[in-house]
Amino acid sequence: MSLLVVGSVAFDSIQTPYGEAEEIAGGSATYFSVTASYFTPVNVVAVVGEDFGDEQMRIFRGRPIDTQGLERAKGKTFRWRGKYQGDMNEAQTLETQLNVFQSFAPKIPSSYLNSEFVFLGNIDPVLQLHVRKQLPKARVVACDTMNYWIQGKPEDLKKTLAAVDALVINEGEARMLSGVENLRRASSIIQRLGPRTLIVKRGEHGACLFQDQSIFFAPAFPLEQVHDPTGAGDSFAGGFMGYLAKTGDLSEPSLRRALVYGSVMASFAVEEFGLSRLLRVQPEEIKTRFKEFKAMTHFDV
Amino acid sequence: MSLLVVGSVAFDSIQTPYGEAEEIAGGSATYFSVTASYFTPVNVVAVVGEDFGDEQMRIFRGRPIDTQGLERAKGKTFRWRGKYQGDMNEAQTLETQLNVFQSFAPKIPSSYLNSEFVFLGNIDPVLQLHVRKQLPKARVVACDTMNYWIQGKPEDLKKTLAAVDALVINEGEARMLSGVENLRRASSIIQRLGPRTLIVKRGEHGACLFQDQSIFFAPAFPLEQVHDPTGAGDSFAGGFMGYLAKTGDLSEPSLRRALVYGSVMASFAVEEFGLSRLLRVQPEEIKTRFKEFKAMTHFDV
Repeated sequence: MSLLVVGSVAFDSIQTPYGEAEEIAGGSATYFSVTASYFTPVNVVAVVGEDFGDEQMRIFRGRPIDTQGLERAKGKTFRWRGKYQGDMNEAQTLETQLNVFQSFAPKIPSSYLNSEFVFLGNIDPVLQLHVRKQLPKARVVACDTMNYWIQGKPEDLKKTLAAVDALVINEGEARMLSGVENLRRASSIIQRLGPRTLIVKRGEHGACLFQDQSIFFAPAFPLEQVHDPTGAGDSFAGGFMGYLAKTGDLSEPSLRRALVYGSVMASFAVEEFGLSRLLRVQPEEIKTRFKEFKAMTHFDV
Repeated sequence: MSLLVVGSVAFDSIQTPYGEAEEIAGGSATYFSVTASYFTPVNVVAVVGEDFGDEQMRIFRGRPIDTQGLERAKGKTFRWRGKYQGDMNEAQTLETQLNVFQSFAPKIPSSYLNSEFVFLGNIDPVLQLHVRKQLPKARVVACDTMNYWIQGKPEDLKKTLAAVDALVINEGEARMLSGVENLRRASSIIQRLGPRTLIVKRGEHGACLFQDQSIFFAPAFPLEQVHDPTGAGDSFAGGFMGYLAKTGDLSEPSLRRALVYGSVMASFAVEEFGLSRLLRVQPEEIKTRFKEFKAMTHFDV
């Protein structure tokens, strides 16, 4: 089943202890669609500027990614400049130029209106809700958010959360959103806001899935070196939603496998700068790493 | 098979966001022996002062804990005062009174000299090595250490590490000891120092087991409330070593189960202040929680 993502497309400039990159293609919709395209066809709704040229568009070509919803606006593409230090669990934003993203009003092509699987990337919750309302056939709508919206638009965010099935956020955001430090209590509070399924990303400590009364934990893949954490969260979401959309199976065992596929894809994302590694992952590598997750977590009772 | 622990016995004064306790019994040997005694008989080598009375000794009675090696010295028992804030992953030491612990020279009763399973709690690495050398029959010697020794006695610590089979430390200590941030590379560096088995405790993020080329991850049990993290690490070690000593099975599947039992016991330790919860855990509760760990981590390939 096809999957719709609404989010950002950007030029990222990144510094990590292992190198730097200038103005490489990034953004939540980019990482998500490339990653999810290994599982299922993806439709992208986002906006780019006139400087997003043929070189960048090649990212989407040759993959089951439909860019009909990729609007081209006058002006420059969204730019982000960030830096990672120490354990690289958190980015420090050095500069943000919203450019065409400032007035982004997602337009959903009519052929996308029957989407059953939807990911609302980290954009204004007002826009997320606006998109969500246009998709009455959606079986699973998942969204991301961040501290900027949790603090800046808490009421709008609550309306969006009440209208989605799943929320994918990081641990610090879960604490901020719920107002409590304890993860288990934080999850209950957040689930009461709307999303039946809550996925908490914990960076190098893995991820957990809260669904009704059940909890599932997966570690992060223990890489020898993380080169660039940018896009890890959106690649995680791409693996998670991609697997669900591919199988159409929303059972608990399927959600657990989806969480592991999310972790698998995030682990590829951080192996190199930007999208480099994700653009040349082989399906066989995805299967192998999935099995490695099993081997790293299995024990006999 | 019986298990020997060498470590501290202390009076702890603890403040957490959920309350405080004054001069309650604690120390690495205390938490370890109480926890491990649910699995196997334990012999304790430690020192207490004249103020460690009958009330405190009751902790060990009625359990398979032999206190022949619990030396009573003139003076006061070791005292520690600490505080936990925020996510409570780390204690802030407010006061340490070494008292009789200052001149602790572990004396191993002759009946303990055939010990096959040994845990060297967090004491001076010179003493740890001294004890280790007296135990030629040991099949598994595990030790703990801390930043104080890593920074203060690095050469002595290296000699101890070269003589042990397993090291149980927390994530920050693993980074400090290896000099690298990345956990996978840190583990390789530490294993080359001696311990074939490395266990890294990650507080609320669980624990991992590095053994040869294999890695195993277990989450922490997601409690609704952690009341007091004191003793969690030693309770973890008690569950881990207790299970190994009970079964005598040093295969990889057994080590994995041992790690989970360590996580189970640590989760009980933090549910209440000091030893309270550990003193009244029921064997059935241990089994149930072990199965809950399985349920929280299982997925089908």
